[in-house]
Amino acid sequence: MMFPTPAAFAAALADPIVPDEAAIAHARARQASLTKPPGSLGRLEDLAVFIAGWQAQARPQIRRARAVVFAGNHGVTAHGVSAFPAAVTAQMVANFEAGGAAINALAGAAGLELKVVALDLDRPTADFTQAPAMTEAECLAAMSAGADSVSNDLDLLVVGEMGIGNSTAAAAIAARSIGGNGADWVGPGTGVDRFGIARKVAVIDRALTRHGDAPATPFETLRRLGGREIAAIAGAVVRARQLRVPVMLDGFITCAAVAPLAAVPGAIGHCLAGHCSAEPGHARLLSALKLEPLLRLDMRLGEASGAAVAVNIVRAALAAHDGMATFAEAGVSAG
Amino acid sequence: MMFPTPAAFAAALADPIVPDEAAIAHARARQASLTKPPGSLGRLEDLAVFIAGWQAQARPQIRRARAVVFAGNHGVTAHGVSAFPAAVTAQMVANFEAGGAAINALAGAAGLELKVVALDLDRPTADFTQAPAMTEAECLAAMSAGADSVSNDLDLLVVGEMGIGNSTAAAAIAARSIGGNGADWVGPGTGVDRFGIARKVAVIDRALTRHGDAPATPFETLRRLGGREIAAIAGAVVRARQLRVPVMLDGFITCAAVAPLAAVPGAIGHCLAGHCSAEPGHARLLSALKLEPLLRLDMRLGEASGAAVAVNIVRAALAAHDGMATFAEAGVSAG
Repeated sequence: MMFPTPAAFAAALADPIVPDEAAIAHARARQASLTKPPGSLGRLEDLAVFIAGWQAQARPQIRRARAVVFAGNHGVTAHGVSAFPAAVTAQMVANFEAGGAAINALAGAAGLELKVVALDLDRPTADFTQAPAMTEAECLAAMSAGADSVSNDLDLLVVGEMGIGNSTAAAAIAARSIGGNGADWVGPGTGVDRFGIARKVAVIDRALTRHGDAPATPFETLRRLGGREIAAIAGAVVRARQLRVPVMLDGFITCAAVAPLAAVPGAIGHCLAGHCSAEPGHARLLSALKLEPLLRLDMRLGEASGAAVAVNIVRAALAAHDGMATFAEAGVSAG
Repeated sequence: MMFPTPAAFAAALADPIVPDEAAIAHARARQASLTKPPGSLGRLEDLAVFIAGWQAQARPQIRRARAVVFAGNHGVTAHGVSAFPAAVTAQMVANFEAGGAAINALAGAAGLELKVVALDLDRPTADFTQAPAMTEAECLAAMSAGADSVSNDLDLLVVGEMGIGNSTAAAAIAARSIGGNGADWVGPGTGVDRFGIARKVAVIDRALTRHGDAPATPFETLRRLGGREIAAIAGAVVRARQLRVPVMLDGFITCAAVAPLAAVPGAIGHCLAGHCSAEPGHARLLSALKLEPLLRLDMRLGEASGAAVAVNIVRAALAAHDGMATFAEAGVSAG
């Protein structure tokens, strides 16, 4: 197991990995030399420099990139917090494996290999209004499964999730990590009505009270309020930084999974926000995490779907960065 | 010539071409049947339905798509309205042809063929503070060249431009078409300072006064205040609608080129806004044209660059629309 103990997870999280400054400087100098007014490619320029830093290459490439969808089930669904029955988690995992889900199509369009990691779907987490969602061993196993999905031959990792009920867990984690209560972080998820939203708020507020005196460490927040897929995302993101693999985050749940990590300086410095979803808490969470989303397309599906679409923007950024001629090469007046 | 007279252009503009309602209905029904909560792919769903309507196919494809970059030179550059010398227009056309510009890389990344149409670069338009920018014959020739760049085997047309000084012409057209004066529509373009902006404002206000009593037809606005590349974009967009080819618009100048057309109901109903650029007038112009941009990446280059990046979003939308399984096919509970 990559993370045999909570201390091992905390140590990996604190590992002071930073992007390569020389590659960043070279990439910035290259951008300034390309045949366009300085800065005129906007965020495409920033993306190229960002990837350059994490790849430690002035002209980075995305040769191999992977989307990983983690799936888990949640005891909290007993409170009627989702518009779909919990059985849908396993049905959708089967759909991912058969190639019929949105992420299959969107990963294909973005040139991503797709890995699906179903985490003990027949053993939902505990109802976190009553007890921690996971034991230490369960949480460490999920985090380690997340870490195992990352390999050092990846140029980009895309993380996403599937888990009926997990927008309730995500809202609880966001409230515990950033502040506020259930009402500040709850939205319709995949489509509950206002009664469902009221149930979610009540469940979250009970959970926040229940776990209010627990240690406010990233591990304990994820263990008590999260789910296996959420802990796995956190494990994957921590491991990716150790391997210097940049990460594209997906929606509200994915961002909530990294919110506890952000208390450690630099811990999510290798993460890009793929999009801002239609789930109301997502914009607020991105702002708290100081992440500027690449896309705002009113998506709210999860499955890494928004992040997969955003990978196309990164590919465009690197194509321009690598493929363009300099003013000198092209004989164009630099203004 | 596709448009031998102003009346021929006006007639093409008034041609009542609409998307296929049956294909739209079938595409919407398909979206509702796919394995995701209804609406959860957000604008990707709308894009698929939009393309379905214009292709008259419930499951549309983009097999052949083309980016066309029109280039022209502007007499108004004599007033010091650009950060770059007018010679850069021809230098950049050479760069497009050599494959070294941003649009070469971005078109490649989006699977677009690229066509460059340089329009009489050695004959700049007249200074529109003194006279109409073009004679009727010049404007009709440019519009017809634009129309000639469209063919009915295209599934999507991307339009863009290159022309030192053309953000001044675009601002004048926007003011004439939508309302307001120079100060309402001027920005830094490719990078003039505040003195340059003041010069642009003064030039536009003089032009608006000079042509204030002219007929307010789309043709006259484009002829008097536009440029060859701007007129060509208008011609291409009008022709594309006749051929039922959807169009992806680029930045401020491209949108200004279609602003006069929008006075005719439905005339830009086949157009998508690829992005909102960093040029301040662009957001205002998109709002006036009731176009919601797909991307906001602070790009401000022109060359069809932002529109080309946005094509990746359309491809993702169609991949999901066509590739996903239905609830029935996948055996997933529909909630």
